[in-house]
Amino acid sequence: MTDYFKVSPDGKGYVAQRYAQELPFPTRRDLQSIEEGALMMPCFGDGGLVPCITQDAVSGEVLMLGYMNRQALSLTITSGYAHYWSRSRRQLWAKGERSGQAQQVEQILIDDDQDCVLLKVRLTGGASCHVGYRSCFFRQLVVSSGSTSFRLRFLEDEKVYDPAQAYGTGMSE
Amino acid sequence: MTDYFKVSPDGKGYVAQRYAQELPFPTRRDLQSIEEGALMMPCFGDGGLVPCITQDAVSGEVLMLGYMNRQALSLTITSGYAHYWSRSRRQLWAKGERSGQAQQVEQILIDDDQDCVLLKVRLTGGASCHVGYRSCFFRQLVVSSGSTSFRLRFLEDEKVYDPAQAYGTGMSE
Repeated sequence: MTDYFKVSPDGKGYVAQRYAQELPFPTRRDLQSIEEGALMMPCFGDGGLVPCITQDAVSGEVLMLGYMNRQALSLTITSGYAHYWSRSRRQLWAKGERSGQAQQVEQILIDDDQDCVLLKVRLTGGASCHVGYRSCFFRQLVVSSGSTSFRLRFLEDEKVYDPAQAYGTGMSE
Repeated sequence: MTDYFKVSPDGKGYVAQRYAQELPFPTRRDLQSIEEGALMMPCFGDGGLVPCITQDAVSGEVLMLGYMNRQALSLTITSGYAHYWSRSRRQLWAKGERSGQAQQVEQILIDDDQDCVLLKVRLTGGASCHVGYRSCFFRQLVVSSGSTSFRLRFLEDEKVYDPAQAYGTGMSE
């Protein structure tokens, strides 16, 4: 666990952060402003979510694709730690809250039509994937001359941490 | 335009590729097989689509987030060039077909729960974004001590190509 997830001596700290107000994201305007302007106007689309690519700020490795609602993006901005919306558990997900594998945010980027966020992060625990690997993208499709038997090759030799120990019997954060 | 998009002398070439059959992606099985197994079992979720992160194989820069249906992923595998499903135009999108900014695929990765693809590509035209920049993520949110006025800072000084020239009056591929 990182300091961020400890309750601070004044009784505030993480628990206070979690229920912080949503930021007043600007309303989306014309396409020109969205695509070429200098104001963030994120599109919270299906289910009020915006997809978020998370990349290791040091190695450049892509770690995961997550989803954020307004609260998760607000908390990511105000706390400096990545927050997502867990679609499987249907709840706010402070990355690392249980596993200790948190993500300290260095940069928040947004794409041309502002319907995808890119976080550049530092890993506090050396890993991101809930299966135990550094990146969620630890397997590559084997393709030979445009042909494939759908076989996946493992790109990481071993897990960084033991998810059973981090999460108990449940596998998710 | 790259060679890939020219019709070959035998009259086959790209047009033939476009209507190639979908590959028989394996049926998804138990969570253990999906998350830790060595067989690709992609999840084509909402609308039959799987999100796809595309990364520059040389620089590691994240270029875009696209979406693929079965046909687009099949063609990406068999042709070695990135294909997507354009949600706005509701049609198959051979990246670079009109703009010349194609993506030659070096690696196809998949994440733990196999509901996101990661392509590592080489850019044939030096750019990927339809607005004209190298990456779609050409703007960074300005944050100071957890506070923001939603101002975006441009990370690329100038456009790599002129989209008006590449696409004509329409802005999309």
